[in-house]
Amino acid sequence: MKSNTEKNMGKRPLDGVLVLEFCQYLSGPSAGLRLADLGARVIKIENPGKGDLCRILPIKNQWVGDDSLLFHTINRNKESFTANLKSPEELAEIKNLVGKADVLIHNFRPGVMDKLGLGYETVKEINPKLIFAEISGYGSKGPWAKKPGQDLLLQAMSGLMYSSGNQKDAPTPFGLAIGDMLCGAQMVQGILAALVSRNKTGKGAKLELSLLESLLDFQFELLTTYFASGKRPLRSAVNNAHPLLGAPYGIYATSDSHLAIAMIPLADLNAAIGGEKLEDFDQSQVFSHRDEIKSILAEHFKQKSTDHWLGKLRENGLWAMDVKNWKELKQERGYQEMQLEQEVRLPDGKSILTNRCPIRIDGKRMLSEKPAPELGADTEKIKAAFNLFEIQS
Amino acid sequence: MKSNTEKNMGKRPLDGVLVLEFCQYLSGPSAGLRLADLGARVIKIENPGKGDLCRILPIKNQWVGDDSLLFHTINRNKESFTANLKSPEELAEIKNLVGKADVLIHNFRPGVMDKLGLGYETVKEINPKLIFAEISGYGSKGPWAKKPGQDLLLQAMSGLMYSSGNQKDAPTPFGLAIGDMLCGAQMVQGILAALVSRNKTGKGAKLELSLLESLLDFQFELLTTYFASGKRPLRSAVNNAHPLLGAPYGIYATSDSHLAIAMIPLADLNAAIGGEKLEDFDQSQVFSHRDEIKSILAEHFKQKSTDHWLGKLRENGLWAMDVKNWKELKQERGYQEMQLEQEVRLPDGKSILTNRCPIRIDGKRMLSEKPAPELGADTEKIKAAFNLFEIQS
Repeated sequence: MKSNTEKNMGKRPLDGVLVLEFCQYLSGPSAGLRLADLGARVIKIENPGKGDLCRILPIKNQWVGDDSLLFHTINRNKESFTANLKSPEELAEIKNLVGKADVLIHNFRPGVMDKLGLGYETVKEINPKLIFAEISGYGSKGPWAKKPGQDLLLQAMSGLMYSSGNQKDAPTPFGLAIGDMLCGAQMVQGILAALVSRNKTGKGAKLELSLLESLLDFQFELLTTYFASGKRPLRSAVNNAHPLLGAPYGIYATSDSHLAIAMIPLADLNAAIGGEKLEDFDQSQVFSHRDEIKSILAEHFKQKSTDHWLGKLRENGLWAMDVKNWKELKQERGYQEMQLEQEVRLPDGKSILTNRCPIRIDGKRMLSEKPAPELGADTEKIKAAFNLFEIQS
Repeated sequence: MKSNTEKNMGKRPLDGVLVLEFCQYLSGPSAGLRLADLGARVIKIENPGKGDLCRILPIKNQWVGDDSLLFHTINRNKESFTANLKSPEELAEIKNLVGKADVLIHNFRPGVMDKLGLGYETVKEINPKLIFAEISGYGSKGPWAKKPGQDLLLQAMSGLMYSSGNQKDAPTPFGLAIGDMLCGAQMVQGILAALVSRNKTGKGAKLELSLLESLLDFQFELLTTYFASGKRPLRSAVNNAHPLLGAPYGIYATSDSHLAIAMIPLADLNAAIGGEKLEDFDQSQVFSHRDEIKSILAEHFKQKSTDHWLGKLRENGLWAMDVKNWKELKQERGYQEMQLEQEVRLPDGKSILTNRCPIRIDGKRMLSEKPAPELGADTEKIKAAFNLFEIQS
């Protein structure tokens, strides 16, 4: 069957790979999205009542038809198959489909797939080549296994909230669903590695990953430093941008906006910006006197405009940048030439703009104009194509 | 050749895959690290003088021998081969090695590999099956191509700094190298998808990804909302945790610490915490009156302790969590049972503790006790094993 994707873009690396997505919200569906971007056929298995609860999770009260705009951005280029997994007949159809799949992803809480009769030990019997990918909040075992695996809660308990903001600020969340996104990305790594392996061995695998492990992996620098020193890396008192990096690393207010300053040796910085007071410090003090140096710089940068400082820094080959919002970014030629946006066409003829897959292959962007599916839109087509009516119990 | 990894852990999905890493700092090496975690043999190709500049990039002034602790955490389980790529003889050896590799990753600035004689058009002739993975800051073309691809600068110009912090705060960076980490993770996805594809087609591929595209991909929800509405999603005035989510989503100070509150319907929240003032609001107002509702909650939560509120919320099945730092997290049984830490043994007999690969396969954690290589430590061994002395060309 020729998918929309193939029609538009030629062959993709995962053409022919069949993925069943038993997922809700963001972590699992983001993994499914990337696999679909890369050419896999991704079928969402949804409850016939509400389906993926993300369909009713609004962001900024924006909707596309009956579904949340968020649902659309994360489920484009997928199909939807509805089944009541508590009905023995429909469960048998699903098992039939599992027998034909390459990958199954789920992000139910631990134990739910087993109760449904779709635990790994069962589906492995049906399909020993299946890659079974299980995303949880906190792992399948241990005292936290049953806790709700929600991004902000995981950020809160993973220590992550002590990396952004300044030292005296409250614990500061990353303002996006970083746990969901990282976990989804890492699960794709596991799934694809298992597919590479299966080509040699013919065997499937069970993969497990939790949001907590992903968030801790993300903090590997902080944790390794903490393990080595026994001291928690502290955010800087002012202009913090990374608890492990010395002065001047940070964002500084200027007379008209803000400036990002990367790792720059103090002497070079001093020469470029004429900051006399920095002459009292040398490079060996960028950690020990981090906050003092940053405070002096903060006062200094306030005196002139961002353009003034960028000119001084860049003519000396030093790493600095102005801070943009999305509106400013979108107006830049560099953004436009990147061609990041793609149109997704909705069944009613309207369209939405969203991001394409960020990876380019052989110089080509990978676009997918197929929208997120309406609930159950592909059930009958899939039943017919896979002969699911012939139940093999 | 039996690697340390295999000796310890049995087969891994990427056993037999040979990766050459022409990378520095964090984005490329983080991709190499994950491939090594998953079983690939990863050889860093380094300049005989200094090697990967991350070796001399200190974090918190912590060092392991002559190398930065950061270098150790991100380069464990790799080998180091030094070559002066400007010497025709040594370049010929490298080309010989490229002919035997499955994957080449580089994060030089655009054009550098071409100048060195290792551009994709050249290496494709040597090895048509090679997966050539190119990480840049801003893409290989366009007005920004030559800009320095540094994490904080990219965060600054990608719009990301308007998602964390509160509305009147300065642009707030994510306090970790989020661009590097996401870009590395996504490049692993591309590389593994290309390996899956190569098993069918026998052909390699050129993959391109920039830190900017990764950071914009990460903001897909914000951008799609902005594209649809023309209005920039604003951080909430108080207790912001995600610019797109309505009240009560956020972190709240309590009488003794802080509390994370996920998406909870207002009526349920009100009933659980006895917040009389919230009775004036209904669920349709969580976006329109977001800041007002959050301000009321902020006052309310300050009155009692975190344990008090967690008790009330959890007995009602509502999603909340206390905020932990790394020290508190490390003391939890749930953390300990996760067995996240692994020991990496150094040549001098000492060891460091760092994070393991977060993915589990068939119930097993994937550990790797092999440390980061000393500069050039494996050059002679690799020359001999691959017969690189027999220069072809």
